[in-house]
Parts: sequence; C-alpha cells; structure tokens
Amino acid sequence: MRVLGVDPGLTRLGVAVVDGGTGRAVRAVAVDVVRTPVDDELAVRLLKVSDAIEAWLERHRPDVVAIERVFSQHNVRTAMATAQAAGVVALAAARRDLPVMFHTPSEVKAAVTGSGRADKAQVTLMVTKLLGLTAAPKPADAADALALAICHLWRAPVRNRMAEAEARAAELARNHRARLAAARRLEAGRRRSTGKAVSE
Amino acid sequence: MRVLGVDPGLTRLGVAVVDGGTGRAVRAVAVDVVRTPVDDELAVRLLKVSDAIEAWLERHRPDVVAIERVFSQHNVRTAMATAQAAGVVALAAARRDLPVMFHTPSEVKAAVTGSGRADKAQVTLMVTKLLGLTAAPKPADAADALALAICHLWRAPVRNRMAEAEARAAELARNHRARLAAARRLEAGRRRSTGKAVSE
Repeated sequence: MRVLGVDPGLTRLGVAVVDGGTGRAVRAVAVDVVRTPVDDELAVRLLKVSDAIEAWLERHRPDVVAIERVFSQHNVRTAMATAQAAGVVALAAARRDLPVMFHTPSEVKAAVTGSGRADKAQVTLMVTKLLGLTAAPKPADAADALALAICHLWRAPVRNRMAEAEARAAELARNHRARLAAARRLEAGRRRSTGKAVSE
Repeated sequence: MRVLGVDPGLTRLGVAVVDGGTGRAVRAVAVDVVRTPVDDELAVRLLKVSDAIEAWLERHRPDVVAIERVFSQHNVRTAMATAQAAGVVALAAARRDLPVMFHTPSEVKAAVTGSGRADKAQVTLMVTKLLGLTAAPKPADAADALALAICHLWRAPVRNRMAEAEARAAELARNHRARLAAARRLEAGRRRSTGKAVSE
C-alpha cells in the first residue's frame, strides 16, 4: 500500500509518500515541504497548496491520503489556516476517489515512538531509523509527513481488525434481538391461545 | 458589480448572488442553501461543497466572492469544518481568478442593521427590506449569505476610499521625507563650505 502523508499548513506543508511492505517494513518514496508566501492572499495560497498536492497525487499515485488532524492551536488564525490547507488536500483526494484518513498528532507520535507525548526530535530520530534514511529529514514538517504515513500504514490493520470485530459484535447483537423477538412472539401466541391478556 | 456571498458550513452553506447598482440599490439574483449529509466523510462533503460552488460560479459569473470570516466557535470541530468549507469556496474562486474577500459576522450585521450585535431576526428583517423581497429568506444561512453580499457591496467603496487615502498619506510622507533629506544635504553642504564639522 502506498500512502501520501500530509502535515497540513499554509506557510509550510509537509508531504511524503511511503510504501508499506510485509509486516512492519516501510520505504520512503519521496518527501518535501510545500511553501506558500505569507504575503499572498489566503485564496491564492490555498490554490498553490491544491496545485502542489494534485501534482503529488498525479506523480506518485497513492492508494490513500493520510492527513494530520488539527484540533486546536494557540493561535486561532493559524489553526483555521491549517484546517483550510487540510481541507484543500482532502478535497484533491476526494476528486480522485481516494480514501482520506485523519490521524491526531498523538496517534502519529505513539505509532512511531511508542509515546503520544514524544517531542519532535524523538519523532525525527525514529522516522530516520524506521525508514533507514542516511540523514534526518528536514524540516520537522517533512519528518512529520513521513511519520504520518508510517502511522497510517501501521494503524490500518488494527483499524480493519477493529472494524471486523465491531461488525461481528453487531451481528451477534442482531441475532440476539431476533431470537428475543421470536421468543416474545411465541409467548404472546401461547397466552392468546390459553385466553390470558396479552397487553399489560 | 455582482457578488457571490457565502455563509460557510458543511451541514448548511448559505449562498447568494446580489447585484449592486448605483448608490445603495441592491438586487437579489439567487439564494439557496447547500447541504451535505452529516454521515458522509469529511473529504466527500468538501467535494460536494466544491462542486456546488463551482456550479454557482459557472451559472452566475460573479465579479467577486465574499465569505464570512469565522474566527472561533464554541465547538472546535464545527469551527474547523466551517473553516474548511470556507477554504474550499475560496479555492474555487481563486481557480477562476476571482478576488475573494472575508467579512466578519459583526461587519455584516453592522452593514445591514447598523449594529454589529444585531440578532438573526433583525438581520433577516433588514435583508428582506433592503432587497425588496416579498417573503423573508429562510433558513438563517440563506439570509446571512444575502447580508454578506450586501455588506461586501457597501463596504467596497469605503475600502477603496480608505486605500486611496492611505496611498495619498504615504505619498505625502514620502514627499516630506524627500524634502527633509534635501534640506539636510543643503545644510551639510553649507557647513562644509563654511569649514564647520559635518559629522557630530
């Protein structure tokens, strides 16, 4: 499976393509940071992000797009801009019928370092190690995009197993309710035939 | 000038086209609410919003797109979704080289009611009156989109006058600095010719 990982932002947007192999093997295909000028108008910056992502999708043909989910940031304006960049990326993926998944920063950190509260240096170190890179990816946004793609590759099987388990549980519950309803109908029929009141 | 006003949102996105005439005359061309299913995935909802906006741009050919600027909301997830819907609208406008302007809710309220703290009912009442509509536009998102377009039409001349005044002020300052520099050079030359020390 090939994942396009995106650490969204308007000033710097980390983007990485990672292939997943058998087991936990992962391979970096490409990584970069897309920048848009701070002086440009918002709409123009979003257009530049959109064009860049479309070029990446066209060139690397990922199977899925994983985006960092941003819940809140200290600066509301930055948080909104980041959300908008993420939205534009999701839109480009949807236009190509690609599934889009969001992962929180702590999920990403936990996936690659084992701790949801790991710092940037730790994430970069583990990404470098896991992908067998000769040098640490820079800047942090690039490393984050790689970590996000790895997180997606490793979480996907877990998610699938959970979805299967949930589906099984739902089926069991459905069967149980059906048996219960059948038993009630049977009991009601029995009461009617013996002349007892059916309603309370 | 023809304005496409957008009150962004994923569940309900208000969209309106208003023409500005001479003076304060405004005319509603079209108004509607775009809805996307809550159960759909975010990327799919953004795609639906994008397609809807592109259809509006194609059909009504506005000169400018005015979007409500959302700073923050009580629900962070809703605020992010709203920001993303706004981003997708801005992107569609930028793709067509259309200028995009953002107005805050209080700017919109102040423009149509005179008070930045007017309630929804008051905004709807004024929009109905200003556009000479026979019935109040519903739901509130539709009225908000109309109000936003009116706000843009009425604020544009003010903004232009302010930009002109700023440009004039900048030119005056530039001229003043140039005269000052010339006077200093003259003074320095005079000191040199009379043998006085030029530097401190």
